[in-house]
Amino acid sequence: MLRVGVIGYGYWGPNIVRNFSGLEGARVGMICDKSPEALKRAGKNFPGISLTADPGELVRSPEIDIVAVITPVWLHYELTKSALENGKHVFVEKPFTANAAQAEELIELAERKHLKIMVDHTFLFTGAVRKIRHLIDDGVLGDLFYYDSMRVNLGLFQHDINVIWDLAPHDLSIMNYLLKSKPEALVATGQSHLNGHENIAFITVYFPDKVIAHINVNWLSPVKIRTTLIGGEKKMLVWNDLSADEKIKVYDKGVDISTRENVYDLLVSYRSGDMWAPQVEQTEALKVELAHFLQCIHDDQTPINDGLSGLRVVQMLEAAEKSLQNRGGLVQL
Amino acid sequence: MLRVGVIGYGYWGPNIVRNFSGLEGARVGMICDKSPEALKRAGKNFPGISLTADPGELVRSPEIDIVAVITPVWLHYELTKSALENGKHVFVEKPFTANAAQAEELIELAERKHLKIMVDHTFLFTGAVRKIRHLIDDGVLGDLFYYDSMRVNLGLFQHDINVIWDLAPHDLSIMNYLLKSKPEALVATGQSHLNGHENIAFITVYFPDKVIAHINVNWLSPVKIRTTLIGGEKKMLVWNDLSADEKIKVYDKGVDISTRENVYDLLVSYRSGDMWAPQVEQTEALKVELAHFLQCIHDDQTPINDGLSGLRVVQMLEAAEKSLQNRGGLVQL
Amino acid sequence: MLRVGVIGYGYWGPNIVRNFSGLEGARVGMICDKSPEALKRAGKNFPGISLTADPGELVRSPEIDIVAVITPVWLHYELTKSALENGKHVFVEKPFTANAAQAEELIELAERKHLKIMVDHTFLFTGAVRKIRHLIDDGVLGDLFYYDSMRVNLGLFQHDINVIWDLAPHDLSIMNYLLKSKPEALVATGQSHLNGHENIAFITVYFPDKVIAHINVNWLSPVKIRTTLIGGEKKMLVWNDLSADEKIKVYDKGVDISTRENVYDLLVSYRSGDMWAPQVEQTEALKVELAHFLQCIHDDQTPINDGLSGLRVVQMLEAAEKSLQNRGGLVQL
Amino acid sequence: MLRVGVIGYGYWGPNIVRNFSGLEGARVGMICDKSPEALKRAGKNFPGISLTADPGELVRSPEIDIVAVITPVWLHYELTKSALENGKHVFVEKPFTANAAQAEELIELAERKHLKIMVDHTFLFTGAVRKIRHLIDDGVLGDLFYYDSMRVNLGLFQHDINVIWDLAPHDLSIMNYLLKSKPEALVATGQSHLNGHENIAFITVYFPDKVIAHINVNWLSPVKIRTTLIGGEKKMLVWNDLSADEKIKVYDKGVDISTRENVYDLLVSYRSGDMWAPQVEQTEALKVELAHFLQCIHDDQTPINDGLSGLRVVQMLEAAEKSLQNRGGLVQL
Repeated sequence: MLRVGVIGYGYWGPNIVRNFSGLEGARVGMICDKSPEALKRAGKNFPGISLTADPGELVRSPEIDIVAVITPVWLHYELTKSALENGKHVFVEKPFTANAAQAEELIELAERKHLKIMVDHTFLFTGAVRKIRHLIDDGVLGDLFYYDSMRVNLGLFQHDINVIWDLAPHDLSIMNYLLKSKPEALVATGQSHLNGHENIAFITVYFPDKVIAHINVNWLSPVKIRTTLIGGEKKMLVWNDLSADEKIKVYDKGVDISTRENVYDLLVSYRSGDMWAPQVEQTEALKVELAHFLQCIHDDQTPINDGLSGLRVVQMLEAAEKSLQNRGGLVQL
Repeated sequence: MLRVGVIGYGYWGPNIVRNFSGLEGARVGMICDKSPEALKRAGKNFPGISLTADPGELVRSPEIDIVAVITPVWLHYELTKSALENGKHVFVEKPFTANAAQAEELIELAERKHLKIMVDHTFLFTGAVRKIRHLIDDGVLGDLFYYDSMRVNLGLFQHDINVIWDLAPHDLSIMNYLLKSKPEALVATGQSHLNGHENIAFITVYFPDKVIAHINVNWLSPVKIRTTLIGGEKKMLVWNDLSADEKIKVYDKGVDISTRENVYDLLVSYRSGDMWAPQVEQTEALKVELAHFLQCIHDDQTPINDGLSGLRVVQMLEAAEKSLQNRGGLVQL
Repeated sequence: MLRVGVIGYGYWGPNIVRNFSGLEGARVGMICDKSPEALKRAGKNFPGISLTADPGELVRSPEIDIVAVITPVWLHYELTKSALENGKHVFVEKPFTANAAQAEELIELAERKHLKIMVDHTFLFTGAVRKIRHLIDDGVLGDLFYYDSMRVNLGLFQHDINVIWDLAPHDLSIMNYLLKSKPEALVATGQSHLNGHENIAFITVYFPDKVIAHINVNWLSPVKIRTTLIGGEKKMLVWNDLSADEKIKVYDKGVDISTRENVYDLLVSYRSGDMWAPQVEQTEALKVELAHFLQCIHDDQTPINDGLSGLRVVQMLEAAEKSLQNRGGLVQL
Repeated sequence: MLRVGVIGYGYWGPNIVRNFSGLEGARVGMICDKSPEALKRAGKNFPGISLTADPGELVRSPEIDIVAVITPVWLHYELTKSALENGKHVFVEKPFTANAAQAEELIELAERKHLKIMVDHTFLFTGAVRKIRHLIDDGVLGDLFYYDSMRVNLGLFQHDINVIWDLAPHDLSIMNYLLKSKPEALVATGQSHLNGHENIAFITVYFPDKVIAHINVNWLSPVKIRTTLIGGEKKMLVWNDLSADEKIKVYDKGVDISTRENVYDLLVSYRSGDMWAPQVEQTEALKVELAHFLQCIHDDQTPINDGLSGLRVVQMLEAAEKSLQNRGGLVQL
């Protein structure tokens, strides 16, 4: 039985407590929040769990094996470091840290202490992303051409970060997981209209072998859109995360290229066939993710969303930030 | 009665002939195409119109007042120039020319000869774009923040141009028409997967006063999408050109910014109200556009899509091409 | 402070407990279910509330002012009667009773005892239905022509009732609320394919002044549909209850009728204008409904969904059942 | 080469002329309309075809092998009879005739003269209906449970017929074609709001083996809906005729029924799997239909939409009319 301490009981914290509580092999032993109101809510929803306003008490407690850091990003480094130093495994919100140097230090520390870090890139554990990964692994799509995602809505303006740090980590972690190769460079553009932080931004990421990815994030959209196009040589798919029943549609559409003898021009011919919407697993992604963490600790395995994968996302965020300041200059990764 | 000669009877030419024929004040006197098969089709569909395989015959004919150049872009300069030199007004396909220098020369020539040029940016004459322009002119949207368009489908690969030259002219002309201010700089990224010409590309355009525009064009999408988000200070709209009945939806949604006394943070509050889909004029855009051309010739007025507006689009295409080669460097306009 | 006892802690019961608990002016004092497992869940979710397996204990308790009967329909009569006899107000699931005679007896009993009955036709308290009622009351739609509802999905087969008793009460109560006039007669058709109870059925209801209503209910549909068309002389609307943001769309469409002098034929001309999606209140309908019940008890007013309105629905269900047996004969109401 | 004479050049006539003209093995020799304006349009669109205002001239012409009767329904009987008497095959608009007696007489006459009748139930030749028929024939859906169609829009009010005679023939012919068995009885309800003819109506048709069909037709709907649900034992499908790319969606959803030993209740368990949208043939249905007619004449075969199938639709329309007058009484077929 692994005992979990959760730091941060705001919007996302209650989901962490509820899901760890529901898993065999874990129980939540302590909840920490500096807000008395948040602690009161925690006590009402989960009677029987110890409460504290002092994260130090939590990370030092001998009754805790895993610390979940569910706080704003600027607290991740400090809290994760202190948890690791006290011998705890750490589950930490995305983005992993505020910069790459912090992430590297934490990864090194965890390795030295033989502890696990999992960064909460929840989307990797949704039925949709797992299904797409299977389609790619099974060669259904063929060689990939592009990943193009639109993630916009009338959103909560963050006071400390821009729309890229808020929304892009989802797609960055997903594309790293799906495309498998290492991104080479990126370009980011965007604009801030209201409070000094960019509220609309566009990122292009160049991968090897002509694979290209693009992310469109926007806090000022009148409608919510969560749509990703993935184009492959053999098939192409549309993932609409807002669709209740048909999240993934796989199209037997594509282009075949050939050359005629003695002719310059390439011949491009089109294929157009059936569409197919595979059933997608409905289990709550967070539950699957936390179960994976428990399993990795138990078996001494590396989570697919370990510190290193969290670091890669932070590196891309930093690069995007740099490109954004240059109004779209190419930044090597 | 203005007499029209149409050069090029491929995919789009028949629509030009049909629409000019349907307008009072014009009739089509001659059709030119070098393909005997195309001329045969023209003769069958429009008996009574002279046919020729020689564009020289058409542009020199004293029976012709307007020359419509409906050919691939690399022929636009030569044919338009020759028509102007022979004293004809010119209606020319978009993009206007293959480079800005050609466009400038043609504009100068037309001015000298007191002739009109109209570049076929048909979209400006759709009910949807005219309605959006009215909404902007009437202040319904307030100050504009962004224009974000997605224009993707499984498309015809062009042998001589990339997806930007094929699809982006639509959005570039529309944004120039709607945003009214002069674009300052742009960034383009993209990739070619099949025949050496980019088949997927993303353009960010910076306008004054923090207005930003973005275009996503793709020939390799499994689904057809024609959706533009336009965000304003007061209201925001979604234009879905594929919707039969509700092409434009105006949302009473937005963000209000205020500052509390003695407090650093800006307060961002949300508005969310009714949605409204104004009825959109259904008249065929090409018909409205050609009628506008006849009217401008008659009244000696400047078309909204004159040579200068065509030149601005060509300049942006050239800039996008340059940025694309640099994998996303900023190019001043 | 009104004290509530809830009988039945299956699928819907927890929502009743949660919503009464959240309202000022009420608290849940006792929960009853004959299943030990249900009681265990209740105890876990709502510590501090008395539990019992004996409904008699609950209805007789002097600590209870309101009894909520959240059980299968065949238990409604007995439990409601016993609660009323013990001087409790009653909130009872829909349909009110298994037949009209039972409903009439209960209404008479409640009146004699000066107690309130509310039948849980939750839909009347949704933002959508309240908005439609306002549109009708304000004359926006003009005189009504029809109400046409489709309510289908791959549904839970009930063992004791058919799809009409399961799904039609929603639309019957809504149409009674919206159309305001008294239904005159109805016709029902349908078929049972699997377990002897009809799983697909269609009901037509005739109202005065040529108003007609139609309900399509189906447990064997591959897709979930919850769409109602309401046609009025001035405007028409579509209510799609599954739409997240645009549940109600009001169309400025319609038909005008005139007669030309000396001419037999009526002239029918069409109007087609803007569409408008009013914002719809998002508050949980059950919360609004229960607050209305508390208010009615407090002010000695009649709920809009009182026993009489519940009786009208039961009468229509009985008539539909009768018509169904006759494969569609007209049954007067 | 079969020579066609077309009587009636209103809304649909031009499509008949165009499609016969485009087929090998046929040419249109004469067009008849009593309106001089219609004849003028015909002459302009199809120069070289003889024109007449006298149907007698057309049906007696020795230059004509097939007469196409594209007129209002009250002229079908007279014109078809006269064409058959003159030894012509007849292609006639739906509904076949104004009553069943007329249809029977025409069928008998055609048989006696060894001539073919085809009734223009165009929908049977759409890619969608042919695909659904294949799915049924191949056993993909299993035994059928129901056919449920909604066919509504803001429609053209007909002066001489109600919405059932206008819109229901589509679904009646389709269901006869797909369900294959003979309908046993039907029930129709509806209402007339404006000009004395019903503008909204609902028909339930009982087929053998518990198969049930339902049609919802409405001229006063603010939105256009063309959606049919077809439920089978193995799979179920949704046919949305307004969808550009995904007209048919086949759902691997359903219900399995079993009985536990010693237990009354049937156990109903749900299946829910992938969805699949087969590609649907895009060829214009009318072209496929007319080619089928030419082939049937050439090979002396019976069209799938012969006089008999047209008669069955007329019988159902008459029965629906009768039921409608009785406000929903069951009418045996």
